[in-house]
Amino acid sequence: MPIIDFRLRPPLGGFLKMALYTEVERRNRITRIHGFEPAPSALTQSIDLLLQEMDAAGITMGVVTGRNSGRYGSLGNDEVAAIVGRYPGRFIGAAAIDPTDRKRMTRQIAEAAKAGFRAINIEPGSYPSPLHVDDRTLYPAYAQCEIEGLPAIIMAGGSAGPDLSYTDPAHLDRVAADFPNLKIVVSHGGWPWVHQILHIAFRRPNIYVSPDQYLANMPGMDDYVRAADGFLADRFLYASSYPFTPANDYAAWFKTLPIRPESMEKVLYRNAAALLRLDLTS
Amino acid sequence: MPIIDFRLRPPLGGFLKMALYTEVERRNRITRIHGFEPAPSALTQSIDLLLQEMDAAGITMGVVTGRNSGRYGSLGNDEVAAIVGRYPGRFIGAAAIDPTDRKRMTRQIAEAAKAGFRAINIEPGSYPSPLHVDDRTLYPAYAQCEIEGLPAIIMAGGSAGPDLSYTDPAHLDRVAADFPNLKIVVSHGGWPWVHQILHIAFRRPNIYVSPDQYLANMPGMDDYVRAADGFLADRFLYASSYPFTPANDYAAWFKTLPIRPESMEKVLYRNAAALLRLDLTS
Amino acid sequence: MPIIDFRLRPPLGGFLKMALYTEVERRNRITRIHGFEPAPSALTQSIDLLLQEMDAAGITMGVVTGRNSGRYGSLGNDEVAAIVGRYPGRFIGAAAIDPTDRKRMTRQIAEAAKAGFRAINIEPGSYPSPLHVDDRTLYPAYAQCEIEGLPAIIMAGGSAGPDLSYTDPAHLDRVAADFPNLKIVVSHGGWPWVHQILHIAFRRPNIYVSPDQYLANMPGMDDYVRAADGFLADRFLYASSYPFTPANDYAAWFKTLPIRPESMEKVLYRNAAALLRLDLTS
Repeated sequence: MPIIDFRLRPPLGGFLKMALYTEVERRNRITRIHGFEPAPSALTQSIDLLLQEMDAAGITMGVVTGRNSGRYGSLGNDEVAAIVGRYPGRFIGAAAIDPTDRKRMTRQIAEAAKAGFRAINIEPGSYPSPLHVDDRTLYPAYAQCEIEGLPAIIMAGGSAGPDLSYTDPAHLDRVAADFPNLKIVVSHGGWPWVHQILHIAFRRPNIYVSPDQYLANMPGMDDYVRAADGFLADRFLYASSYPFTPANDYAAWFKTLPIRPESMEKVLYRNAAALLRLDLTS
Repeated sequence: MPIIDFRLRPPLGGFLKMALYTEVERRNRITRIHGFEPAPSALTQSIDLLLQEMDAAGITMGVVTGRNSGRYGSLGNDEVAAIVGRYPGRFIGAAAIDPTDRKRMTRQIAEAAKAGFRAINIEPGSYPSPLHVDDRTLYPAYAQCEIEGLPAIIMAGGSAGPDLSYTDPAHLDRVAADFPNLKIVVSHGGWPWVHQILHIAFRRPNIYVSPDQYLANMPGMDDYVRAADGFLADRFLYASSYPFTPANDYAAWFKTLPIRPESMEKVLYRNAAALLRLDLTS
Repeated sequence: MPIIDFRLRPPLGGFLKMALYTEVERRNRITRIHGFEPAPSALTQSIDLLLQEMDAAGITMGVVTGRNSGRYGSLGNDEVAAIVGRYPGRFIGAAAIDPTDRKRMTRQIAEAAKAGFRAINIEPGSYPSPLHVDDRTLYPAYAQCEIEGLPAIIMAGGSAGPDLSYTDPAHLDRVAADFPNLKIVVSHGGWPWVHQILHIAFRRPNIYVSPDQYLANMPGMDDYVRAADGFLADRFLYASSYPFTPANDYAAWFKTLPIRPESMEKVLYRNAAALLRLDLTS
């Protein structure tokens, strides 16, 4: 069974300058809270080792996200494209945007579509000037994603902004309601707002939920798992948040969760493949 | 053991023009998410079949709510009264209000009390101009309900408004605090704010909780059930949300929940009978 | 194994004039909701009996908090100091503040530090003019606590203010972010915002969580317990909220929770001893 890991940051280029690779002690502490040991590939910053770990676990592809962040570091779309190009068939690119210039922002999305990016990565709370998910500044970006037919990955969970209000799911709910034809992937799964995000996903058919690292060993986990095997089976997306968890051990652990095989197959790759318009049979 | 179903919309008159009867596919999908198959009476829109289903399950009476909604359709109080009158002893009426005209709104409540309605149904988020539960527009209505001694059924859960902020339980908490002598039934149980609504019910003795369909197979269910058999045993109200779930199968399933017989009896009918001032022994 | 009870109000002086001793029926009802019978010492208002109950359960010390509240009654710092002085080694004082006069407020904190208080007790929602936790009025107090090296006990859970917005954890999150060197004890554990408070504690290393009475038999309990034996083992603080629960029976019950001995030891006394700079070996 192939696996698409919807949030995976390989030890390459700009990623190595981000907190997720530079603050090793903090990252290892978080890895252990989630119940795992740090990945050898993360500790040694070895892409070859990561590819081996992915192979061992059957992880066909990982979604690599551009980023434009004050606190967490940045990674340009050129670099994302370079990573995707250098390891054919192993990584799928999601382009970042710069929300400070409206025209540039929408142009970035149009260009990303032309360049073969399969999604746009939007991280409202971690921009240099943090935004709430439904800030009007971002509405042209959502509109442009809808026009281009590209799903928007919105980071709306975990430590996504300066404080908890940035993950308040009412913001996300408004965007989902205002752009019913935009497919939205909630990365970090809206955690810790587990009940609320599941309500929103129950109500809005354009919401996809990917709790990634916040599924593992965290409050609300059982509710995520039940949804993945229930009403969200067609809109739940597997992700490891590597390097915060080891891609291979996380996949092995995830497969032990009480999710029926037909749902598991959807969650691990069918849903992501359809959303990213991949042809896995080729 | 008799049962009062606190939210039941029979296939009659204006109900048949509401989304809950016209959008069959969506409704059936929701029914199945809750773990049930659609009721034959709902599929065939047969009141006779519904009455048979109610009889088979021991459902003595259902609370029929008037509605004044943009999105979901409307049902006037005349029609509610007609349904109650046509099937004596099977339905209890809750009157709707029109919040756009203050004097008319309070008069509606006074007239409803005189006409024998046993509750007022208030759906702030689904009015043509959606309101938060604690919008000052509604305060005269709450005051009038208190004056008339009628409980207010407030829809403050599920998809009760344009976005999640309409179910934010802080709004409800303020109303409960400002009208301590008003008995408030939280229909849809404040879901998905399960922990928060249970806190409010723990704090405010005038709050009654009725999660109806959002109890079945949804995140937080176990907490609702424990409360129903614990501190909320005297203020938990059974409801099926028919036609979203089948009235009879829902009742049969509900009876299997881990709620002790003495609490179950209160939840299924004693609490509702007392609140609606019914004399079930007659 | 010694125990420090981080929230314990003995039947002495001003405490006896507070709702927690005067509204006996309400208090007993709450005690039973938490699954306990009222403590004999609470019913008879006997400090000698309480000390016996503490001894029987191995409760070495209790944190006694000053209070400045409209609704709940007040207890001055002089009286707290008198209680601490009269029963040497049994009680630890946390000083109250008066937020209505900025200079007086910061002076109170400086004086408390000099007088040997080990913490400052801040109850924003229950001041005569209720405040949200991040109200700017309180920022000088947080700054002064940081300067004095005193932890701030912030009541940000339960019925901490006029309505649910007073426990909205976004307020607390902002304070934790703005004062990263201030150690904050969340009394009442942020309940009912269980998932959210655990997120904040996961993110902010200066947050200590003490759900006290709201752990017992309340929604979210299992998540608190897992955190106490997991990522929060070093920042979880045991408390009974006596007289709302019996100090001894609560301790006996708490010891039966699925928390490993090494975590239990931290939760019951090591974390509190370190935070309050106590030397338990002397």
